[in-house]
Amino acid sequence: MKIITLTTDFKDLYPASMKAVILNMCEDPIFIDLTHDIKQGDILSAAFALYTTTHFFPSGTIHLAVVDPGVGTSRKAIIVRAANQYFVGPDNGLLIPAARRIGDIEVFEIGEKAMLDRVSNTFHGRDIFAPVAGLLASGHEAEDIGQPIEAFEEISFGEANAAVDKLYGRVLYIDSFGNVITNIPAKMLEDFAKPAEKLVVQGNVASYSPTYGKVQKDELLILTGSHDFLEIAVNGGNAAQRLNITGHPEIWIEK
Amino acid sequence: MKIITLTTDFKDLYPASMKAVILNMCEDPIFIDLTHDIKQGDILSAAFALYTTTHFFPSGTIHLAVVDPGVGTSRKAIIVRAANQYFVGPDNGLLIPAARRIGDIEVFEIGEKAMLDRVSNTFHGRDIFAPVAGLLASGHEAEDIGQPIEAFEEISFGEANAAVDKLYGRVLYIDSFGNVITNIPAKMLEDFAKPAEKLVVQGNVASYSPTYGKVQKDELLILTGSHDFLEIAVNGGNAAQRLNITGHPEIWIEK
Amino acid sequence: MKIITLTTDFKDLYPASMKAVILNMCEDPIFIDLTHDIKQGDILSAAFALYTTTHFFPSGTIHLAVVDPGVGTSRKAIIVRAANQYFVGPDNGLLIPAARRIGDIEVFEIGEKAMLDRVSNTFHGRDIFAPVAGLLASGHEAEDIGQPIEAFEEISFGEANAAVDKLYGRVLYIDSFGNVITNIPAKMLEDFAKPAEKLVVQGNVASYSPTYGKVQKDELLILTGSHDFLEIAVNGGNAAQRLNITGHPEIWIEK
Repeated sequence: MKIITLTTDFKDLYPASMKAVILNMCEDPIFIDLTHDIKQGDILSAAFALYTTTHFFPSGTIHLAVVDPGVGTSRKAIIVRAANQYFVGPDNGLLIPAARRIGDIEVFEIGEKAMLDRVSNTFHGRDIFAPVAGLLASGHEAEDIGQPIEAFEEISFGEANAAVDKLYGRVLYIDSFGNVITNIPAKMLEDFAKPAEKLVVQGNVASYSPTYGKVQKDELLILTGSHDFLEIAVNGGNAAQRLNITGHPEIWIEK
Repeated sequence: MKIITLTTDFKDLYPASMKAVILNMCEDPIFIDLTHDIKQGDILSAAFALYTTTHFFPSGTIHLAVVDPGVGTSRKAIIVRAANQYFVGPDNGLLIPAARRIGDIEVFEIGEKAMLDRVSNTFHGRDIFAPVAGLLASGHEAEDIGQPIEAFEEISFGEANAAVDKLYGRVLYIDSFGNVITNIPAKMLEDFAKPAEKLVVQGNVASYSPTYGKVQKDELLILTGSHDFLEIAVNGGNAAQRLNITGHPEIWIEK
Repeated sequence: MKIITLTTDFKDLYPASMKAVILNMCEDPIFIDLTHDIKQGDILSAAFALYTTTHFFPSGTIHLAVVDPGVGTSRKAIIVRAANQYFVGPDNGLLIPAARRIGDIEVFEIGEKAMLDRVSNTFHGRDIFAPVAGLLASGHEAEDIGQPIEAFEEISFGEANAAVDKLYGRVLYIDSFGNVITNIPAKMLEDFAKPAEKLVVQGNVASYSPTYGKVQKDELLILTGSHDFLEIAVNGGNAAQRLNITGHPEIWIEK
């Protein structure tokens, strides 16, 4: 049994080609789709999806992640090893926060010998990253496939800050319920507000509540989400739509 | 091999965390996603999805279902055993119709010892229900994990009724084609109408037809669907949009 | 290990019933969802999805494909064997281009003995095609399940043509990025245009470029896609929306 997760902005069809390539190289894979619904080219959302999920997987898991607006340009292809988990994808920062959360990281640049005979300009997921995941899944080590490198791209979740009457941060992710997940740590929120206290986000009053079902239906709330960050939600509704938030804007919570 | 199905309103990302937790507890799972596209908090649609699908699975299958608007409130977490299949999820009625269809049911309240060390207020799918599914998948019995209980929540599909010139019922589910599935049993429809007879639903004429392709393209039809209930469809189109139906309204079919 | 792929226009829920039926017949399947997001009844798009993906799978793979607007009418149910891969689905042309790409094909009409005891009029995916895939997966040969036939439905991707200053073709598929994939072969495009040359598609100027990231953001481009056909794309955007293309219209590229 070899666990291989997939994270892309491909929606459908293309992930199956990647799995097909791996099935030619590995006898008994278990494929887990993390998400294929990342907004096209939204590297930060994908990095957060990996960051919040991959550390739950068992040792030995291979995480294949392709959100790759620079496909076919000069950006590198890399393997990241962290503790005993592996990440495979483009060198655009995507893999790094998740890998660092799991352990000390080593980064390897993938050489040409690991790729399919004929590499397209537009689908390295199938032609480079899947074959590399297949090599790892069939027992090859990162050292056999790539060269260790010291310089690689990073991506930052940004800084959160607390003042007496304000928390500052940034939107990291909007989930499929429309919950708005920020980079403000749970601890910072807990030090800032008391249970049931009324707070203000973008001019809207929101209750600080432990969970969705403890406020009225359709009420805006602020809570510590399952990701351990400050999250903005609407009970039974969509907070991102309510507050008209898209992408990764700055955000502040006031008393 | 241990089969574990998943049914949620999570759309994407969160199901992968649940699978990750289970992969730490069970060597050889086969995960089957029933659906993750249930409308947020729509317990009745999810109960129907389970009801119409789970009885096809082999003995020993574990069905993990999380449509849970009451997460973090005082609602219980339960295991339902029916014949040799298992259901795990919140005590809000979700699991019961499917389990009753399979056999006599026994219900167990999940105690705290079965949960992850740190339980979030908002994601019991990952922190309670997935670990319980993992325990069942690795050979523990329901008695080891929970306490038998007699009182639990039920959900009703409602009553259907036939008069001489009318059938009454309720919408249970709108599928991804926009087919409107009611709680009116196939037999009641077959006793009511003759093949090719014209019927009226919400003021619209519809043919009673054995299948979609036997009426004109874009024509409204009434048929016995694959769920064995009266279904309203449009050949090559979307009946729910045509009739402007959302949710679970009452419905009647007239001659 | 037995690999079974699924391709449908079912979106969600119904594929799980098909997998359940197969799990009763085969001990160790690996299910790969090619796509369930084919537009309702769009046989040509589904045929292309199969054509561009199935040849990457290992020998022995079974491809179960159900885009079946004629379900319950007199259309046949077939198995197609090509080299050592199998295709199961309706006789409406869907399976043929993919199977021919893999090898010489043999076509078998599925008889009644291979079906579930009770066959619905509307869900042959569950009641006929899944049981047949299960039989193949558990070691039965096509000859045991069906009768060889010579006459079956074909579907055509159409002809592409090149003039001195024009390429003519047809839209085969619009992918989830909104990239418009045509039936114009890569070679025809490469003979027609020079790298970085400006071309015109439907009155819009587009650069001929090796990949997305080598033109400006939001710029229209024409490239050889990963399918080895001429593809029209927008860097970071949606070409089908930009050009207002739906379905499978004729298309021409001018200098």
